Amino acid sequence: MAGEDIRQLFVCTRLWKIIMHYAKPLAKLVGEFEKLPGIGPKSAQRLAFHILRISEDEAKALADAVLNVKLYIKLCPVCYNYTDQDCCEICSDAKRDRSLVCVVSEPRDVVAMEKTNEFRGLFHVLGGVISPMDGVGPDMLKIRELLARVGDGEITEVLLATNPTIEGDTTAMYIARTLKERGFEGRISRIAHGMPVGSDMDYADQATLIQALQWRRDI
Amino acid sequence: MAGEDIRQLFVCTRLWKIIMHYAKPLAKLVGEFEKLPGIGPKSAQRLAFHILRISEDEAKALADAVLNVKLYIKLCPVCYNYTDQDCCEICSDAKRDRSLVCVVSEPRDVVAMEKTNEFRGLFHVLGGVISPMDGVGPDMLKIRELLARVGDGEITEVLLATNPTIEGDTTAMYIARTLKERGFEGRISRIAHGMPVGSDMDYADQATLIQALQWRRDI
Repeated sequence: MAGEDIRQLFVCTRLWKIIMHYAKPLAKLVGEFEKLPGIGPKSAQRLAFHILRISEDEAKALADAVLNVKLYIKLCPVCYNYTDQDCCEICSDAKRDRSLVCVVSEPRDVVAMEKTNEFRGLFHVLGGVISPMDGVGPDMLKIRELLARVGDGEITEVLLATNPTIEGDTTAMYIARTLKERGFEGRISRIAHGMPVGSDMDYADQATLIQALQWRRDI
Repeated sequence: MAGEDIRQLFVCTRLWKIIMHYAKPLAKLVGEFEKLPGIGPKSAQRLAFHILRISEDEAKALADAVLNVKLYIKLCPVCYNYTDQDCCEICSDAKRDRSLVCVVSEPRDVVAMEKTNEFRGLFHVLGGVISPMDGVGPDMLKIRELLARVGDGEITEVLLATNPTIEGDTTAMYIARTLKERGFEGRISRIAHGMPVGSDMDYADQATLIQALQWRRDI
């Protein structure tokens, strides 16, 4: 039996098992919840039974929220963060420092940075990182768009805030090199790598300790 | 400040924080996901970003599934399990042993029992357990309906399969006593309490070990 056939059979058996024990609309909802990331069969059942317990209005609020993000959320044409406006609230905020742009890989990283309340510049969301293993090359990210933004001349610092992973570091290095090749004369910085606040030297992994050594500063 | 005021303020601040970092429809969806049991702020964000990544059809399938359970799922008038039929599939299955009824507290317990593929009788879902702490008395459960079913004369064994907790045991005892008072002459049984299969004597809690001793059988 080919792999696809086995997979098909597996999905059918699994689906059949769900249908066997639940009424059909309930089986369908359990199945839909199971498709979500981090939701296993047990959590999916728990969520579905929860939906049965809440009021019709509350269930409708959830269903509408799911539909509305698909209807109204799009990418900001400047920074490629999620927005429901023509241009996102950060890009159109006059109080922001327009000379500093923070490059991140995903919209959720913008949320993380914003939560610090420390960063007052703009963002640029790449939509991923360079990853030959997953077949993601520089052309599939919003790097060309970043170069165009930087080319306008308003930006004096590009802060590369991709994750401190092999892919994130590679992407940061690639962007830094490309910016220099294109003659960008502003500052190109990288978020610091080191020990997380409140962590324990004893429990830190080797790679983090090495980075914490290399990034050390005089105090 | 009264407790309710503080709670209100807390909810507002929390909501405001969500709205601050996300576009509005996205903040709404994160908020809706956070209301679900077992979903914290981080998981809610992860689920919402997942919805943004999947196709519109897939999101619609989830939203429809949520709405459809509320539209089509109701309680079976015989056993009070969830169903989308006039009478649930188990109750209307002619191959089932109609002389044996298994009493459980929640619809999810029916699913658990059905998954064993061992039980061929019918069910009766109480919709909870007797719990003075939570203000749940016998009148708020489907006990009267159980007595009426048993009164029809077809049932010769009532298997009490409420959870092996104080509330579950109390509910089982109450039903057993009431059945006897009403002159039920069939068998009244209780699911066995003891060591779970594959568990370790060394790690078992005292209450379970005591039960396992008291329920011991000659082999």
